[in-house]
Amino acid sequence: MKKHLFFALSLGLGCLNAPAQQRPPAISSPNVHPDNSITFTYFSRTAREIKLSGEFLKEPVSLIKDTSGIWTVTVPPVVPDIYPYSFTVDGVGVADPNNTFIFANERFKRSIVDVKGDKPLIHSLQNVPHGKITYHNYSSQTLNATRQLLVYTPPNFDASGKTKYPVLYLIHGGSDTEETWTKVGRANFIADNLIAQGKAKPMLIVMPYGNVRPAPMPDFTKDMVNDIVPFVEANYPVQTDSKGRAVAGFSVGGGQTLNIGLTNTDKFAYVCSYAPYTATDEFKKNFTDWTPDADKMNKQLKLFTISVGTEDFLYESVKQNLAMFNEKKINVKPLIVSGGHTWMNCKLFLATSLQEIFK
Amino acid sequence: MKKHLFFALSLGLGCLNAPAQQRPPAISSPNVHPDNSITFTYFSRTAREIKLSGEFLKEPVSLIKDTSGIWTVTVPPVVPDIYPYSFTVDGVGVADPNNTFIFANERFKRSIVDVKGDKPLIHSLQNVPHGKITYHNYSSQTLNATRQLLVYTPPNFDASGKTKYPVLYLIHGGSDTEETWTKVGRANFIADNLIAQGKAKPMLIVMPYGNVRPAPMPDFTKDMVNDIVPFVEANYPVQTDSKGRAVAGFSVGGGQTLNIGLTNTDKFAYVCSYAPYTATDEFKKNFTDWTPDADKMNKQLKLFTISVGTEDFLYESVKQNLAMFNEKKINVKPLIVSGGHTWMNCKLFLATSLQEIFK
Repeated sequence: MKKHLFFALSLGLGCLNAPAQQRPPAISSPNVHPDNSITFTYFSRTAREIKLSGEFLKEPVSLIKDTSGIWTVTVPPVVPDIYPYSFTVDGVGVADPNNTFIFANERFKRSIVDVKGDKPLIHSLQNVPHGKITYHNYSSQTLNATRQLLVYTPPNFDASGKTKYPVLYLIHGGSDTEETWTKVGRANFIADNLIAQGKAKPMLIVMPYGNVRPAPMPDFTKDMVNDIVPFVEANYPVQTDSKGRAVAGFSVGGGQTLNIGLTNTDKFAYVCSYAPYTATDEFKKNFTDWTPDADKMNKQLKLFTISVGTEDFLYESVKQNLAMFNEKKINVKPLIVSGGHTWMNCKLFLATSLQEIFK
Repeated sequence: MKKHLFFALSLGLGCLNAPAQQRPPAISSPNVHPDNSITFTYFSRTAREIKLSGEFLKEPVSLIKDTSGIWTVTVPPVVPDIYPYSFTVDGVGVADPNNTFIFANERFKRSIVDVKGDKPLIHSLQNVPHGKITYHNYSSQTLNATRQLLVYTPPNFDASGKTKYPVLYLIHGGSDTEETWTKVGRANFIADNLIAQGKAKPMLIVMPYGNVRPAPMPDFTKDMVNDIVPFVEANYPVQTDSKGRAVAGFSVGGGQTLNIGLTNTDKFAYVCSYAPYTATDEFKKNFTDWTPDADKMNKQLKLFTISVGTEDFLYESVKQNLAMFNEKKINVKPLIVSGGHTWMNCKLFLATSLQEIFK
């Protein structure tokens, strides 16, 4: 009965223009099995070739079609984690039409599969007190626009002003959105779990929208310092000294983190850069012929870390930057792990930083 | 330079498995022109046929391919509104890969095009004070699960408890999610604008996740009354009498609204049902051989309204329900407009209700 209803409604809402004979059957995809193998399913009577790409695969694998137009493939057991994937249907990349969980991104459409495993992972929804996420519209004078940002407040958040919380400003990757750190990175659940375990301090996590187009990237540095930080400090009971502020980010956001953090060490005592993309005019301007006062910066910075995976396409670039900072006598703590330019690594990097900042 | 960077990063993040020769060019789609015509663009070198479906079209239209694999179609000027659309690529329905704005839904993948027009519409982001949207995880005893709900709080929300706000509980359609009323319905901007104009009272809008699977639908009625309302009233300074509570919903959520509201007129004085889907066991159980105390209900209900479009596939069903309520002497205010089972109409219905409730 329920399935019938669900099907009837999906016809009404989703397929208004489809002739009756093309109406798709109800499909469940993906299905994660108890051994952590995963079956992916797609419906098409007319496709000639369907492949699965996923960050758990070295290369795409083909789906096999049955006589009714249902295509499937089962991949061997994977390490529990959250993985992006997509189908390529006759050369066209698509998200899984039967999976609600979409990778929040402006360029590509991928789905997400959550392989939970036997033990709860640090990003899993666990039976602990939960913080909440608030979507704000703030007015950016720098960018002359109303933009959205997300604010995570910890469990039992005290809005009265009696408690002053530290704030992590957390920036997504290029072509991601302000929702990617929660919807893909599960920053809120990572924080909930680490706070419940006593491993992270209760803090706010502010997740702005970092893309600035068509204006150049330095505008985002100004937006952060002149608009976002003041907006947060006007609206929340937070610490307003550098020791109460951290900045972190991934990829393009990792590069933005270096630009924002290292040119404002009076404002941010914690700078955590994940797989930074630094081939930008702003980075060149800031760090070519750079003559920092290393002693002063090393005193101001309670933590400066750069994280990367050895299979990341930016690994060589990150090594060069680590060498540059070492050469300038800036204390930087590298975190080198396996893996690529992925949100699996992002979650690991964030979980590490949350245990190190504001202590 | 910026485009180059954007392109480089989207390669790194989005196309890890794609051979170099298949890398797609940067595409902008959709493009809304000053006369409200719209150009849709899709890239595929291999597709044989690409069609556009959209709720501004009577039937799908074909895109035309140029020699480089860029397919386009321009549709004539449309009435300013927010419209869902999708492509069908060789029979496979896909969202627009170059459009960030996705219809939040569990069954289909559609994109959204915002045709703003010359004058700001009631759902547009305007230069008025903005409320905020908070994502909560609440523990449902009824459903034995942690579920997400969204709470809109109005501009200048007073959390101190000195002001007690009324609350609208607003339910999405079947296969939608708890985000559909904000991401597609723009409930928050509609409320911001009507509050700024003095046409709606400052209120909270609570948007729960209404789908219950595989358990039957009556469980959601229990979840609403026994879990969601108590959660909101424990966490926000709100009115806790029936005159401070409204319930509204669309499609399956419109049916849920009738079930929740009309069996709890002591708890909800405002019941606003939009294009309700009522072919459910719960509705039959509640309203077959129903012998309401009409005088009492008509006193309890400050507003009971049912809205529908004349081209809605549920129009005949809604007319039968209106006749049934009339026959039972229950005062019901119909709102019959043109149009189909669409979120364009949802926005209109909500904007109407917001001006009528809590007054």
